Amino acid sequence: MLRTNTCGELRITDINKTVTLCGWLQRSRDMGGVTFIDLRDRYGLTQLVFNMETHAELTEKARKLGREFVLQVTGLVKERSSKNNQLPTGDIEIIVETLTVLNESQTPPFTIEENTDGGDDLRMKYRYLDLRRTSVRANLQLRHKVAQQTRAFLDKQEFIEVETPVLIKSTPEGARDFVVPSRMNQGQFYALPQSPQTFKQLLMVSGFDRYYQIVKCFRDEDLRADRQPEFTQIDCEMSFVEQEDVLNMFEGLIKHLFLHVKGIEIESVPRITYTEAMKYYGSDKPDTRFEMKFVSLSDIYEPQTSNLVSGNGFKIFDEAELVVGICAKGCANYTRKQLDELTDFVKRPQIGATGLVYARVNPDGSVKSSVDKFYDEETLSAWAKAFGAEPNDLILIMAGQKEKTRKALSELRLEIANRLDLRDKNKFSCLWVLDFPLLEYNEEEQRYFAMHHPFTAPKPEDILLLNEGKLGEVRANAYDLVINGVEVGGGSVRIHNKQLQAKMFEILGFSSELAMAQFGFLMNAFEFGAPPHAGIAFGFDRLCSVFGGVDSIRDFIAFPKNNSGRDVMIDAPGEIDQKQLSELHIALNIQS
Amino acid sequence: MLRTNTCGELRITDINKTVTLCGWLQRSRDMGGVTFIDLRDRYGLTQLVFNMETHAELTEKARKLGREFVLQVTGLVKERSSKNNQLPTGDIEIIVETLTVLNESQTPPFTIEENTDGGDDLRMKYRYLDLRRTSVRANLQLRHKVAQQTRAFLDKQEFIEVETPVLIKSTPEGARDFVVPSRMNQGQFYALPQSPQTFKQLLMVSGFDRYYQIVKCFRDEDLRADRQPEFTQIDCEMSFVEQEDVLNMFEGLIKHLFLHVKGIEIESVPRITYTEAMKYYGSDKPDTRFEMKFVSLSDIYEPQTSNLVSGNGFKIFDEAELVVGICAKGCANYTRKQLDELTDFVKRPQIGATGLVYARVNPDGSVKSSVDKFYDEETLSAWAKAFGAEPNDLILIMAGQKEKTRKALSELRLEIANRLDLRDKNKFSCLWVLDFPLLEYNEEEQRYFAMHHPFTAPKPEDILLLNEGKLGEVRANAYDLVINGVEVGGGSVRIHNKQLQAKMFEILGFSSELAMAQFGFLMNAFEFGAPPHAGIAFGFDRLCSVFGGVDSIRDFIAFPKNNSGRDVMIDAPGEIDQKQLSELHIALNIQS
Repeated sequence: MLRTNTCGELRITDINKTVTLCGWLQRSRDMGGVTFIDLRDRYGLTQLVFNMETHAELTEKARKLGREFVLQVTGLVKERSSKNNQLPTGDIEIIVETLTVLNESQTPPFTIEENTDGGDDLRMKYRYLDLRRTSVRANLQLRHKVAQQTRAFLDKQEFIEVETPVLIKSTPEGARDFVVPSRMNQGQFYALPQSPQTFKQLLMVSGFDRYYQIVKCFRDEDLRADRQPEFTQIDCEMSFVEQEDVLNMFEGLIKHLFLHVKGIEIESVPRITYTEAMKYYGSDKPDTRFEMKFVSLSDIYEPQTSNLVSGNGFKIFDEAELVVGICAKGCANYTRKQLDELTDFVKRPQIGATGLVYARVNPDGSVKSSVDKFYDEETLSAWAKAFGAEPNDLILIMAGQKEKTRKALSELRLEIANRLDLRDKNKFSCLWVLDFPLLEYNEEEQRYFAMHHPFTAPKPEDILLLNEGKLGEVRANAYDLVINGVEVGGGSVRIHNKQLQAKMFEILGFSSELAMAQFGFLMNAFEFGAPPHAGIAFGFDRLCSVFGGVDSIRDFIAFPKNNSGRDVMIDAPGEIDQKQLSELHIALNIQS
Repeated sequence: MLRTNTCGELRITDINKTVTLCGWLQRSRDMGGVTFIDLRDRYGLTQLVFNMETHAELTEKARKLGREFVLQVTGLVKERSSKNNQLPTGDIEIIVETLTVLNESQTPPFTIEENTDGGDDLRMKYRYLDLRRTSVRANLQLRHKVAQQTRAFLDKQEFIEVETPVLIKSTPEGARDFVVPSRMNQGQFYALPQSPQTFKQLLMVSGFDRYYQIVKCFRDEDLRADRQPEFTQIDCEMSFVEQEDVLNMFEGLIKHLFLHVKGIEIESVPRITYTEAMKYYGSDKPDTRFEMKFVSLSDIYEPQTSNLVSGNGFKIFDEAELVVGICAKGCANYTRKQLDELTDFVKRPQIGATGLVYARVNPDGSVKSSVDKFYDEETLSAWAKAFGAEPNDLILIMAGQKEKTRKALSELRLEIANRLDLRDKNKFSCLWVLDFPLLEYNEEEQRYFAMHHPFTAPKPEDILLLNEGKLGEVRANAYDLVINGVEVGGGSVRIHNKQLQAKMFEILGFSSELAMAQFGFLMNAFEFGAPPHAGIAFGFDRLCSVFGGVDSIRDFIAFPKNNSGRDVMIDAPGEIDQKQLSELHIALNIQS
């Protein structure tokens, strides 16, 4: 070893030891007779002292060192006169006796500090330098810990990690595949897996009973800020279980991770149905760190049979499929300008609402609304009551087509929560969302698609609806785990019966030939004793970012790609030569 | 859960419990009044009993069940009258009260037994059924255990697992890359990594200090029986270390794995140099479970200055660059036929030797050789002495060009060891091979290639030779770990100095432009303070196969590919449609 200790471990108890440290020059301060250098490695920072009086030549040498030089120093551990209690090593310093420059460094293109002066593009290009910053490295250390603890939990539960192949077969269903031309099989292509779904089901058919894998998956989609062409899943599957068993098992995993990674005890993971989630939050991944549930005014009726919103001459409410709102606690004092901002927010094209109605609950309990001329005081009070609004609360109401209005209000709910600081990154709220619809209708293609994937089992009690052709009403034994409004995992009970699987393919518009060509191996496998099974997959990058309290998954990936799918550090993808193309039996087909 | 217990856990202490088990029907025996069924799951086998007298209908139903049906049964645990001590559950049986058929099965195309009647091709096509066989599943359970223990060891040593990207950049050096056309970057391709080599070095530049990853790698090579296009590595790298530190660390890993996976204590891992390995075993991955070291007769001289083999008129020895042999203990009684077999063995085109000379040491100590007419008794006795041969030993000698002869004799050594049962699968002999040549000359391309890769550091004391142009003599700080004659891992100290790295690229015939284009990001990274670093990678599939005592790595891969790189189970690779090709800006270029 080139060192006896790391830069993070020396303490007051090490005083008077002679030690050798290696690391990078973080910063250097020249104080006349004494030069201080902070030496950095993965484990911490240690202060080095060069004394001009006793070691003139050495100190002269030290003064010439630049930032990020790689040093090896030997010296004596001494107690500091002015301690730094911000630093674990802050009680000591090293009186340097010998210094070796292991490597020099050019001045880095940005400062290796928490508040770096480097822009996003520059830091991506020099990712290997950005990774030197403590917070970026801490993200990857957190990721490592989440992986470790995931394995520790699942290993203990007798899950076996099995590696499934990366070079597989392209399937037309789902997102676009990345493909790999085969040199040995002319004109043919492998595909990179979007998930190991079929393989994990085959492993259940094989009797592996409990499988997991932390595995890279690939999707050739147009990238949004929070998507990567390659991403990592915690992929799990179990045999001889029902939905309840899967929920309990992975609730256990999440509790284990929170406890062992974050030191947080999660009491319980509440469950709501998809229908409830849409009704109360307008989202299938509600942020439940705060309440602010939707209240629908459309279905609250006065004793006089007229409801609280329609029949009063306010056309927008009269004609709306749904009138629904939220109560922003303590926001009755919002100014005109603030209310206009909120209206502008919901009118943005991404949200697309036409307007926003508000009602303030005054300190005296009276209600003042933007639609006063249509509703009498009594009705407005009834609204306030419906919302459980108290004096100084602000009620925000939207109206229109049900789904669209809910979606828009869901965005407004998050915006209000942001303004009220209700989305604390150090608070964690987990939620199971259950009973997703099995199928969703695609207007463009005029057919139903599987909401999860074609292997998801309908709820047994809804199979009748399937046979009756009421496809939109069929619920699936499918579940998502949501943390702080982020979908971190999802899964389902699978179909293990070949007739039901064939029926599903038929509903999804697969001819039996196409179904056989694409999934024949799975359909065949189901002929030989498939056990009842169910599973789940967690987005590992996403899970880590939630644990880290950061919105972007990119910060939790060592070498991420940009929005054009490029790795700007290594400059990939790149061109390949004609010989390679010929060997692969392909030619370029460039459209100018 | 559909069960209360697994098929592997019930014992005599569970008697009189009512349990529910799930599993597959392994076999069924009809004994008149009683029907026995062996129910199988991943955890074991349990005997079910159906009694015609008490449960006529149930027993009738049970009799109709076929092999591999998936069953759920509830019943009472009872002590067996005739116990089976081959089976952990052999003391008990279940008196079945209720039976549910969870799924039916067609008759499988081969028996799910240890001695299956299924041929290789059939078992690969129905891999999901082959994986039901206990030994195949046990291989993958062993693999899981090796992975677990690898992580346990490295985590404890403060290695961080970091995932490196799969979609990277093609490099012309080394084996052929698999490539992935980019849809978003017209005319460009990603490559799949042959190893994360450059990324792990960048992580060292980033200060990660200790990195590991159990990671899929890819090589588009023509496949031999023991090669797969996708394979898994345990990839490791450390900073601020010298070769000695790496050897000690990973000797620790190997000892840990043997102890915790196999229950075997490895005393020590001996070290020899590449030069010694070639001299004594004719191989850089000698099987050291047995001795049988090479003895060279070429460099053993009589006092009279003539050596033991040349100058006696035997032209083959006189003209040989090397005369070298092995001593086969106790084989002096080999028949003419057996000796002819050995001669035929070395003359096979794969080995390509021209002949074999033998000398028997008779019970009385006299030596009888196939070249008696050229050598007197005294010389033959001197041969025997040189080999340490005792009465009844057989000396086998080959001669010719040095490298070729050593290689052929190495094969013969293994053949003799096979015949003498010296290659016990339950015995493990580990060995470090050190000081590999840095460069090897390629006659065809008339230039030197890096023996490991272009980032391997020469031994500091040999850098002078590099500057003097004595390229073939330069030794590298490179090491391989060999177990039982199989290279399971290899690595090196890396170059961390940019001038030396540039020099290496120059020697390897890279123009500085090409070097920059291909490895610019690494060369650039070296400008910003690269620490001294070194690493190693283990072939994980290979390591598992060695631990399992099996020659083929395929048995330790859940879904392997065949020698044409095909997955015959899912029938991949396959064709993709024109739309996909167009989106990827490529066209097929089929040569008929």
